[in-house]
Amino acid sequence: MTQIADTKFKREAKRGSHDFNQACQVLDAGKVCHVGFTLQDQPYVVPMAYARLDDQLLIHGSVASRLMKSLASGIRCCVTVTHYDGLVYARSTFNSSMNYRSVMVFGIARPITDIDEKRSSIQALVDHLMPGRRLELRKSTIKELNATSLLALPIETFSCKRRTGPPSDSKSDLDAKVWAGVVPLELTAGEPVDAPDLLPGITRPDYL
Amino acid sequence: MTQIADTKFKREAKRGSHDFNQACQVLDAGKVCHVGFTLQDQPYVVPMAYARLDDQLLIHGSVASRLMKSLASGIRCCVTVTHYDGLVYARSTFNSSMNYRSVMVFGIARPITDIDEKRSSIQALVDHLMPGRRLELRKSTIKELNATSLLALPIETFSCKRRTGPPSDSKSDLDAKVWAGVVPLELTAGEPVDAPDLLPGITRPDYL
Repeated sequence: MTQIADTKFKREAKRGSHDFNQACQVLDAGKVCHVGFTLQDQPYVVPMAYARLDDQLLIHGSVASRLMKSLASGIRCCVTVTHYDGLVYARSTFNSSMNYRSVMVFGIARPITDIDEKRSSIQALVDHLMPGRRLELRKSTIKELNATSLLALPIETFSCKRRTGPPSDSKSDLDAKVWAGVVPLELTAGEPVDAPDLLPGITRPDYL
Repeated sequence: MTQIADTKFKREAKRGSHDFNQACQVLDAGKVCHVGFTLQDQPYVVPMAYARLDDQLLIHGSVASRLMKSLASGIRCCVTVTHYDGLVYARSTFNSSMNYRSVMVFGIARPITDIDEKRSSIQALVDHLMPGRRLELRKSTIKELNATSLLALPIETFSCKRRTGPPSDSKSDLDAKVWAGVVPLELTAGEPVDAPDLLPGITRPDYL
């Protein structure tokens, strides 16, 4: 693929990086990405579950979905993963900000058609999205595999960006009599909810 | 604007809606959107803070940012807001899923240039992102307003999608001896962290 995505940092370059390991850390900490693609000059941005497998991002969907069919046709995409880590309360509106970690991966996704690679890719997805779950579930049937479209996007052309730490106020604002600091944010799991048709005697697994 | 974004639901139509109030509920519950736009055939998806003001989405950034300059030039964009509400543990890999609420807004954003509208838009952003904060902060200076680019995207062409509730298993899987249910997820605020240079005697405000 010719690299045309422009991943240079125009602004706040200190917040940017092209380090693969840093990108992997951000990617591995998330489960939902936003996939951007363009059809007839109109951009679309669709939330999708994903997993990283080595140097590829895996996404999956129905073979009937427009998103999957479009991406599989070889059009360019951008997959962005963002963790929203906190609200940064500065002493001015102008310097108020957010803490975040974000990775954008650019490229053309490759359809995964080989049945063994399909199976191993689905396993990687389940292991990432629901760790510990896979060994409890029956094997996917051929019919299910055929109904599932899988794509692999190489993590080659990418950029990471992040903001961390306390507010950066202008010197002239430092004596303002107003609280300043950060409110950290985190996606947290609540108490599991049993399915209404759960068989009697089945308890919640340890991996939850 | 000629409407070219295709917002018809191809699949899982029962999860979709074009209801304005439902879109507003989803938009008002979030603070970070993903903005998609296309430059030279390459899609970009960038996380941004946003607020809804009536029937417009407001986003802001530096006048120097490529994103803001590109969007202000009148290119089409898609702004997507997603809440990742839970992991859905079905009895098969195939029916495993996620609960979410999501809105995609399509269109061309209008640059806000009038200084009074700029000021009121910034106020709307602060009120949404940091409720209760605005009255404590000094007024934005003209210099700050001039350094801030603001865009308004009409909430006219949009679609909502969501999945809620327990897993939907195939009948043939219902007797599998495996737990099924939902693990709810929520973005939660942690204990505020004072700025290291906080003036002595300033305590945390009630709105945190």
